[in-house]
Order: sequence, then structure tokens, then C-alpha cells
Amino acid sequence: MSHDTVVTAAMLAIGDELLSGRTKDKNIGHLAELLTLSGIDLKEVRIVADDEEAIVEALNALRARYDYVFTSGGIGPTHDDITADAIAKAFGLPCDHDETAMTLLAEMYRRREMEFTEARQRMARMPRGAAHIANPVSTAPGFIIGNVYVMAGVPQVFQAMIDNVLPMLRTGTPVLSLAIACPYGEGDIGTPLAAIQKAHPDTSIGSYPRYIDQKFSTEIVVRGRAQAAIDAAGAEVHAMIGAIRRKKEVVENPSAEA
Amino acid sequence: MSHDTVVTAAMLAIGDELLSGRTKDKNIGHLAELLTLSGIDLKEVRIVADDEEAIVEALNALRARYDYVFTSGGIGPTHDDITADAIAKAFGLPCDHDETAMTLLAEMYRRREMEFTEARQRMARMPRGAAHIANPVSTAPGFIIGNVYVMAGVPQVFQAMIDNVLPMLRTGTPVLSLAIACPYGEGDIGTPLAAIQKAHPDTSIGSYPRYIDQKFSTEIVVRGRAQAAIDAAGAEVHAMIGAIRRKKEVVENPSAEA
Repeated sequence: MSHDTVVTAAMLAIGDELLSGRTKDKNIGHLAELLTLSGIDLKEVRIVADDEEAIVEALNALRARYDYVFTSGGIGPTHDDITADAIAKAFGLPCDHDETAMTLLAEMYRRREMEFTEARQRMARMPRGAAHIANPVSTAPGFIIGNVYVMAGVPQVFQAMIDNVLPMLRTGTPVLSLAIACPYGEGDIGTPLAAIQKAHPDTSIGSYPRYIDQKFSTEIVVRGRAQAAIDAAGAEVHAMIGAIRRKKEVVENPSAEA
Repeated sequence: MSHDTVVTAAMLAIGDELLSGRTKDKNIGHLAELLTLSGIDLKEVRIVADDEEAIVEALNALRARYDYVFTSGGIGPTHDDITADAIAKAFGLPCDHDETAMTLLAEMYRRREMEFTEARQRMARMPRGAAHIANPVSTAPGFIIGNVYVMAGVPQVFQAMIDNVLPMLRTGTPVLSLAIACPYGEGDIGTPLAAIQKAHPDTSIGSYPRYIDQKFSTEIVVRGRAQAAIDAAGAEVHAMIGAIRRKKEVVENPSAEA
């Protein structure tokens, strides 16, 4: 296990609309999936309002603790889009109209015969020295400053930006997983599963209850960074399910005991 | 404005599966909607792993800062369900098998002719002195300790529990809102909308971009605790949309100027 590389990340989703329930976030789950596939461990997510103090505090806590921080939301052209300013403030940097971003946006609006308004120019603002994250959907770039990746909240744009960002990241040893469908509820498997977890400390075994038609079943997921360790724990999980099945058959139909 | 009562809340969603992307959270958006309708301001959400230290730290930060904290996940019967222990630890309380919960669960399993296993008995554990949150779906109760409301992660159970909790809460003056569909992108409305926000400081005006068929439009939402203030700002937003429409008609068809 000592040769495994662990890379950690956090996400900061920004926007009043996520906290009012008006918008149901779609970016957290998407990022979580992509990071898992890349071998980057998403350790924490926070959602905060369009409030400078809240953004600065959360960002400084997260960027000090994790290798990467990914943000979504608040980089559009309206007065409530304050993410660029808040992030500049968190880093103690001025927030300027970036020259390359101004050129990109000016050209795009000229091509579309649209006015490059003062509001649209706000989308070129970023902390001084930030690098761009290309936005193939609507041109206005996200940006990278330190270990923080600042992206749009609109899911189509967020997804395009994260696709551009992923190849730049240092990745860890991927976490592999084995999912096993279990027809029994957590109450049936809890005690034997805890014993399996204890015997296989190089895996992390999770059990996820499902409640369908007034009946609980479980999905058991064995995670780890070594396939052999996962396979060994997985074999014991299958044996456990078989043992519970046989025990239940005996209870329901005592003649099966013979 | 001085007569408004503001009640604040945070949510702490607990579970490795939310951070791996395996499970897409459904509880945050649901709670956010219900709290908004109740006049309780959801100010922050955090998602952490099934990790005692992470849960304790996040919970202590949130419960010190907000009137209420709602948690989801980690109160089932398996070894990775450590929420009750972590919350007891955060409060410096012992985590016991609650006598009433043991009775409730023992009766339910007797009725269903199922064994009340050691794993199932784990679901009766809670910080000493906690009050129950009834669980009409699967019996095992959530609990309340201090200003913290601990609920299940399975959405059907979470929703049933929050329905039982809401009537107990102190609520604030509800935030009212007015949504206005705007056919123009944020770049068109950004500057005039900022001026309207500045002229109506007793409202909070958000604009939410939509990107459909390669075209941006916007939903503008005016929020406030007084209907008259919302109406006044809303009238100006409608006037702004009309002014942009007339300006665009002139550009596209100069003869309309006459």
C-alpha cells in the first residue's frame, strides 16, 4: 500500500439558487464520478451563497487542506456573479480585466454582431496572474489560480471546462471497486460484513440500502487500490450472502435442513 | 425590515458514496425547498465522508454558527454507519443503545418474525439524552440533540423524517420570490439589472442563465420579505426587458424607429 499515490480534492459550489432549492445541483455528482475515475479522492464538498465572506472563508479552508479545489458558479456577467472577486480576495490579489480574455470575448461578440457590454466585460475579470480554462460552449473562460480551478455553474459549461482541466491534473492510484447486489437488508448483513471489513483492512467496504416495494435490499461495494485485495474481500462477501440464504431457507422450510 | 425574523440552517450530508459519485444526492435540494417555504434560510451545505474526524469537525463548525443543522446518512446498521457515534463525540456525550428505540425495534422485528440482530440493534444507538425523530417508513428513529437533527440518507426515509421535524422548528419571516422569464442573456441585462438591484436594496435579485439550443436566456428571480418591495423591483425588471426588446428591434429593423 505504501506505493500508492493519494491525490485529494474538494469542491466548492457557489450560488444562492442551490441553497434556496430553486436549482438542483448537477455538477457535484458529475465531478465526483470523473475524479473517482481519475484516481483523485474527492474528500469534501461545500455549497455557499453568493456572499463574498462565505466564499473567501470556505475557499481558504479548502485550498489549504486539499491538493485541488474545484469551484462552480458565479462567473457570469451579472451583479450577483462575485466569484472572481471573492477568489482574488482569498488570494490577496487584484481582480483585473484579463487582456487575453477581453480579446477573446470582444472577437466573439463582434462575430455575432452583439454589443460587448460592460456586463459582458465582467466575464473577463480574474485574479491577476490566473491561467485560463477554455470554454468551448460560450467562450468566457474559467480560470486557474494556485490549486483552485474556477468554473461556470451552467452544467453544459461546467462539464466542458472540467473535460479541459482533467488532463492537466496530477492523478493518484485509481480506486477500484466491486459492486455486489445483495438481496438482504443491512440488518441481516451488518454483523458478518463488519467482520469481513475487519479481516480486510486494505479495502473499504460500503453497504448502501435500497428501499423498493416496502422491502430493503443492499448494494455492497468493495473499494481498494489493489485488485487482489478487492477479490479476496469480494469472495467473502459472496460466501456471506450464500450463508444467509441457506439460513433463511432453513427457517422458512425446515425440511431443507436434511 | 427590522421586524423580520431570520432563522438560519445548515445541512451536513454524510457518506462516502456521495463523494465517489456512486450516489447522486437527492436530499439537499429537497431540504432546501422545504426550508425556503418555511422561512428558514439554508446558508451552507457540506458533504463529508464516513469519517469520524471529518464529521465531528464539520458538525461543530456548523452547529456553532447556525440555528439548526440537519444531517443525512450514516445511521443504518452496518459498520460504515458511524454518524451516531461521531455526533455523540462532537457533543462530548456517550453513545448508548436508547431504551425506547430498542423496544420499538424489538417489537417491529418480532412482528415481522425477523431476528433483532446485533447489527439491527446498532440502529437504536444515539447520544445520551437525544430525542427521537419518528421514522414511519422503517421504524429506526432519527434523533435530535441540541440544535442538530440527525436523519437517514435513504431519500424516502429522509423525507418522512423531515416532514416530522418541520412542525417543531422556529420559522422566520418567509422569503417571497417573483420569477420573471427573460428571453435575453445575462450579457444584455447585466448592467441595467445591477442598477435595479442597487435601487432596491431590500430585495435580492438573482439571474440564472439557461443554455438551450445554443442560445442563452435568463430567469430573473426577485426575492425579499416584503411583497411591496418585490413588486416595485419586479416592475422595473419588466420595464428593462421591454427596453431591451425595443432596442433590438431597432437594430434588426431600422424602419421600426419611425
